[in-house]
Amino acid sequence: MRPSAVSFVAGPQGEWRIERIVPVRGAPLAAAPRLARIEGELVRPPSAWVLHGVRTHERYTESAERARLSGVQPPLGRAECTQAALIPISKSEAWWDLAQDERRAVFESRSKHISTGLEYLPAVARRLYHGREIGAEFDFLTWFEFAPADAAGFDDLVERLRKTEEWRYVEREVDIRLSR
Amino acid sequence: MRPSAVSFVAGPQGEWRIERIVPVRGAPLAAAPRLARIEGELVRPPSAWVLHGVRTHERYTESAERARLSGVQPPLGRAECTQAALIPISKSEAWWDLAQDERRAVFESRSKHISTGLEYLPAVARRLYHGREIGAEFDFLTWFEFAPADAAGFDDLVERLRKTEEWRYVEREVDIRLSR
Repeated sequence: MRPSAVSFVAGPQGEWRIERIVPVRGAPLAAAPRLARIEGELVRPPSAWVLHGVRTHERYTESAERARLSGVQPPLGRAECTQAALIPISKSEAWWDLAQDERRAVFESRSKHISTGLEYLPAVARRLYHGREIGAEFDFLTWFEFAPADAAGFDDLVERLRKTEEWRYVEREVDIRLSR
Repeated sequence: MRPSAVSFVAGPQGEWRIERIVPVRGAPLAAAPRLARIEGELVRPPSAWVLHGVRTHERYTESAERARLSGVQPPLGRAECTQAALIPISKSEAWWDLAQDERRAVFESRSKHISTGLEYLPAVARRLYHGREIGAEFDFLTWFEFAPADAAGFDDLVERLRKTEEWRYVEREVDIRLSR
């Protein structure tokens, strides 16, 4: 897969209605009524805010994990998934200064990021975008889609991840909930 | 370190005189007399060609390797280093489709990329830039500086790396040699 751009555009238009924007850590994002997820382009329309990212190759997933994931990872856009979350995150310089094996150890060996996420599949569809290399406002944008019946499970997943060692390196996080 | 941009601008001006441009694999780059390495900016001046990249965190180096490297990695810009090489490379989709542990296994366990490079330190100074995430022409740009007495050693290093399993995934490579 060639890397491809994404723009999350908040403003008067868009498929998704913004239900709430919660600043978990660091600077918040402005309120806005709707959100559009525009794949394949870095656009800068007049808007409340635009978050940019790039969908690209995986940085930590190992082959055995990928095999387990590939059987249960659902696509985006399922009809019953009328709830969504957009969670932009930036990590500290201390994180980026770690060597690859040190980041991997915090990410999975000690924080169980992949295996925890696996417990919530196939209910929660997920897509990760990277922003750091393109000088974007956040290091990561993660987009989630799920059915209303799975909303409590999704809250549980987010809660568990926020208690991990990995999350000590998160210096900015905003939790945006949406519906369509 | 925050990610920072670089532009390698080939044209009539620049600190470095281009001695030769050898297309190792895939499409070549046009001939030009001089090259400027502009750190911190993505510029697009009128020029023969411009290659863009981003200097960012390391993707494969583990902590023990970093400790060995940090003792012997020289800075760029040493007065005696009047020779340079710019080697832009793109890897195949097969490479980017590998999981992190598979890429790491090809990169170091089987191709000895880091440990081979270590043998040529501190003679050869090196800086790596990533282009893939920003949609640049090449996935990687690597810049090397060395003294004339170390030019044969540098040729040996490049030769050894090109024979590795990792290099089977290289689908475009241009070898640009420079002097000042």
